[in-house]
Amino acid sequence: MALQLKGIVPPVATPFTELGDIDIDSLENLIDFQLDAGVHGLFMLGSTSETATLTHAKRVQILDTAVRKAKGKVPLLAGVMDSGTERVLEHAKAAKDAGIEALVVTAPYYIKPSQEEIKSHFRQIRMEVDLPIVAYDIPVNVQAKLAPETIWELYDEGTVIGLKDSSGDEGNFRRLVIEKKQTRPDFAIFTGSELIVDGLLIAGASGSVPGVGNVDPHGFVRLWNAVQTGDHAAAVAEQDRLNRLFQIIRQGDLSRIGTTASALGGFKSALMLRGVIATNVMGRPMTRLDDAAVARVRAVLVDVGLLDAQG
Amino acid sequence: MALQLKGIVPPVATPFTELGDIDIDSLENLIDFQLDAGVHGLFMLGSTSETATLTHAKRVQILDTAVRKAKGKVPLLAGVMDSGTERVLEHAKAAKDAGIEALVVTAPYYIKPSQEEIKSHFRQIRMEVDLPIVAYDIPVNVQAKLAPETIWELYDEGTVIGLKDSSGDEGNFRRLVIEKKQTRPDFAIFTGSELIVDGLLIAGASGSVPGVGNVDPHGFVRLWNAVQTGDHAAAVAEQDRLNRLFQIIRQGDLSRIGTTASALGGFKSALMLRGVIATNVMGRPMTRLDDAAVARVRAVLVDVGLLDAQG
Amino acid sequence: MALQLKGIVPPVATPFTELGDIDIDSLENLIDFQLDAGVHGLFMLGSTSETATLTHAKRVQILDTAVRKAKGKVPLLAGVMDSGTERVLEHAKAAKDAGIEALVVTAPYYIKPSQEEIKSHFRQIRMEVDLPIVAYDIPVNVQAKLAPETIWELYDEGTVIGLKDSSGDEGNFRRLVIEKKQTRPDFAIFTGSELIVDGLLIAGASGSVPGVGNVDPHGFVRLWNAVQTGDHAAAVAEQDRLNRLFQIIRQGDLSRIGTTASALGGFKSALMLRGVIATNVMGRPMTRLDDAAVARVRAVLVDVGLLDAQG
Amino acid sequence: MALQLKGIVPPVATPFTELGDIDIDSLENLIDFQLDAGVHGLFMLGSTSETATLTHAKRVQILDTAVRKAKGKVPLLAGVMDSGTERVLEHAKAAKDAGIEALVVTAPYYIKPSQEEIKSHFRQIRMEVDLPIVAYDIPVNVQAKLAPETIWELYDEGTVIGLKDSSGDEGNFRRLVIEKKQTRPDFAIFTGSELIVDGLLIAGASGSVPGVGNVDPHGFVRLWNAVQTGDHAAAVAEQDRLNRLFQIIRQGDLSRIGTTASALGGFKSALMLRGVIATNVMGRPMTRLDDAAVARVRAVLVDVGLLDAQG
Repeated sequence: MALQLKGIVPPVATPFTELGDIDIDSLENLIDFQLDAGVHGLFMLGSTSETATLTHAKRVQILDTAVRKAKGKVPLLAGVMDSGTERVLEHAKAAKDAGIEALVVTAPYYIKPSQEEIKSHFRQIRMEVDLPIVAYDIPVNVQAKLAPETIWELYDEGTVIGLKDSSGDEGNFRRLVIEKKQTRPDFAIFTGSELIVDGLLIAGASGSVPGVGNVDPHGFVRLWNAVQTGDHAAAVAEQDRLNRLFQIIRQGDLSRIGTTASALGGFKSALMLRGVIATNVMGRPMTRLDDAAVARVRAVLVDVGLLDAQG
Repeated sequence: MALQLKGIVPPVATPFTELGDIDIDSLENLIDFQLDAGVHGLFMLGSTSETATLTHAKRVQILDTAVRKAKGKVPLLAGVMDSGTERVLEHAKAAKDAGIEALVVTAPYYIKPSQEEIKSHFRQIRMEVDLPIVAYDIPVNVQAKLAPETIWELYDEGTVIGLKDSSGDEGNFRRLVIEKKQTRPDFAIFTGSELIVDGLLIAGASGSVPGVGNVDPHGFVRLWNAVQTGDHAAAVAEQDRLNRLFQIIRQGDLSRIGTTASALGGFKSALMLRGVIATNVMGRPMTRLDDAAVARVRAVLVDVGLLDAQG
Repeated sequence: MALQLKGIVPPVATPFTELGDIDIDSLENLIDFQLDAGVHGLFMLGSTSETATLTHAKRVQILDTAVRKAKGKVPLLAGVMDSGTERVLEHAKAAKDAGIEALVVTAPYYIKPSQEEIKSHFRQIRMEVDLPIVAYDIPVNVQAKLAPETIWELYDEGTVIGLKDSSGDEGNFRRLVIEKKQTRPDFAIFTGSELIVDGLLIAGASGSVPGVGNVDPHGFVRLWNAVQTGDHAAAVAEQDRLNRLFQIIRQGDLSRIGTTASALGGFKSALMLRGVIATNVMGRPMTRLDDAAVARVRAVLVDVGLLDAQG
Repeated sequence: MALQLKGIVPPVATPFTELGDIDIDSLENLIDFQLDAGVHGLFMLGSTSETATLTHAKRVQILDTAVRKAKGKVPLLAGVMDSGTERVLEHAKAAKDAGIEALVVTAPYYIKPSQEEIKSHFRQIRMEVDLPIVAYDIPVNVQAKLAPETIWELYDEGTVIGLKDSSGDEGNFRRLVIEKKQTRPDFAIFTGSELIVDGLLIAGASGSVPGVGNVDPHGFVRLWNAVQTGDHAAAVAEQDRLNRLFQIIRQGDLSRIGTTASALGGFKSALMLRGVIATNVMGRPMTRLDDAAVARVRAVLVDVGLLDAQG
């Protein structure tokens, strides 16, 4: 379990064909695009990947593609999110069989588990599937928070190796970073918030899992490198630019589509406009961005220098 | 699609063996227990059934059992809850194949869909699986509310035949009942709140889907009959007793288990104490009630006359 | 402290002049309108009265008017809501001085007190101001819930005489009603939800504090009387009509005004249209309904028979 | 209106005597303690000051003390929080009369205003009281969010000069900082989150309003100075130490006192232990920390070097 995780690890989007099948060609392009940018790992089947909408069979297709394209180049992580331990175990075993190197595990949703039940969930998965686990804290979607005490207990006993924090509670994140620095140097702690990565890296975070990193992995890698070399002004400038890019998540028509579809559809529309994937089709019942919204996404891409005005 | 739904339709609990398998014998007993009490329908795979924790294979086992025991005696409904349209379709087709007569469909969870996306979800299921659909509004678990406008649009176009309302918003429920009485007499509208069923039936609701009805279906059938015969004092008295019984949901040790496990585990512990099912084992990672909690459940059963003090 | 509270006790709206002063003439008319309808008490300075926006001086003006017009005719209650004990005490002493007969006390807002702090708050007020207290549970506005245990402890020790429940948790309300019937017959328990008053009265509630009762007190008195005489069909029919009237709260343009202003402004616009008060001016910064919204309110009044179509 | 705001501006705690009066001596000491540390402004009557619990008279006492001790040394700001425009105007006029130099204004609470109503609120205050206004975004207490569009509209028209952001939404804060840097250089933007001040200052924020700065203003001033001189490693180290200090907010016994009382009582207990103020008495109904909790606060102070172990 000597897996070393750090740096920029984008949660890879899931391209679909017009018919709603996994678009394997586009997924391969997207993986290449990330690898070419120099990302430090790939997180397949995250929230950004619309995983909650995907059947088991489609999840396996995606993992097979990722392993085929990227295994041995960067660490490959896979989300196994679902609403109960046995269901997660089905995904976890499939991920292991596919050749994935680490699992990313949330609290089970719908059932609102206690901290003890959450710990039991992680332990059962660790016991039955021989892969390192990164805990994934995303209470806004799973309606249960991973308490700091839960995380440390699971880490200290060897159940998890790290954390992807998408809680939006940056004060708590910073507190965990401090404990890492003081007493648990090997704890891998990633922020899922892409908007203040500069400050969190300067403070000692292990890395970032930026959804918008799908669209501009080069930018996030430059941000990472700037912090590594101590050029904080450059890191801040890059972050500022990436935050302007982040406006692509707000271009959907919310009288029609949900905020999740607007955000993830913004990423996919931008990737389509950049020529990386073929369509901005979403996992049902989420709705793709319409032409007007795609035009607004295009304007943001032009603004941040990712597309020519003629584009 | 002449399915007529009304009356007491309990969401049937899911008994497990000590090893966590579906306990088919106990499930058969539980179904018989409900039928003997005179319930007017059975809702398999509801929230009370811990459906979110169940693998597809286990869901099918439960439906097969229900069809074998109850088909032709009362209408058989099945929940098909999941986090995306394609995943729900897998469950819905299996329910159709098993011989179920109506689907109960929630908004997909995790992804926080818009009303338009919710409508698209229901329509897709209706189009691909030829079974009547009851909409299931449970925002506290799925994080999306079925707006009244959504419900009427889906009903008026023939996508759904009714509603199970577990929103906890009784004012809104009453508003829907009024619209049923005024303009849509065939709309089947069930409350999922078991605590004020008397008043809601008097006001014109079609029926109730009471989780605690698992434990005392006879009581709910008496309540239903009292309202039908205009004996409101008897209905209120029965409701008062059932509400005292409802205290079984609060007996779990919340420093250890979640509120969902406490509630559903209260139902299962009571059924175990009444000799209907064999264990109070829960779907993982939910934790069963411990001995002290079971003793508290027993005391409630004694208090409401469902168990002898010597019990 | 032999104050007996039961029946329909409307939370009286606060009429303003065009300049934003308390419109004493309109307030007197409104009080007469309520008394003529036969209401069983008056609750001044509730949430419906826009109390949170009122200066101390304006609150005193309102109480003086109520005492002058209604003292001795029906019990007079006054809300004393504020964000800390000392601030509430200032209001409570003024209410006592004005001649009010009972205080209505919420948990203090902004500071998110614990149950122990809430109890301390109620006890301090009871100790320093010699008036009976009705607890007012309205967590959606004060961000703190009065737990059932808190209510019973305060009642059993003599700190409060009853409860106005605006929690929206009707199951919990029913549970309190059952405990009243079983062990505490003198506990005065009022629902602040106006939409299922019929069922709650049939179940044993002491009465209702209906905001929309401002607009149609006669309807609520008829509903009360129907339940007293056992004519439940008439009670349900009256409730159905009142619930249609309740649509007046949803006529504001929410792109411009808040939901509170839409609801309370709906009441005031209806009272204006019925000729009871002079304007629909709101306590700043809440915004009055515009002409289009007032026209929609008028249509609802016509629909439920409170205004002629020529109106 | 040439008031220039930047740097460390602590929200000054409110010391009470054992009898619950404002402890003027302790307040003077506390102000001196802040000034000696080199803070860049003082924010009286913030949330940390327990302002919501304070009568108008006590608020005036506090402002008079602040003006007497600090006027002319650093900019003096005062919160005027309340639940309606007229009530806030009473406080605002008193603050102006006392000699305060800028108002800090939240959305009015309890009534849940719309953005238009919030703007109207700010404009009314600006029109009637001739003092610059800093907007204060604290949705967790006032239940209304200041939208970015609202802030910019109020800033661009001259109604507000800046923002204190206690929303906990650091991504949104960063977005506002970027807009400041790009187009509105004079906009004063302060974070109310004390836990990631280092990163936010490096990113371009104007300063911080740290509640825990009451206890260790010297630490925050060192953090500020480290960022100004480009010594980011020192800034991070100071922030790490301050975050350990922040644990003083979690020492209250939450079975007894609320989280607000635990947090603010932690600040006051620490100030008492450091000899700056005389008691840790709280504004009613908030409860002071008990001896066991004070001992835990002491242990934190020792851990971060603010107290000797013998202490």
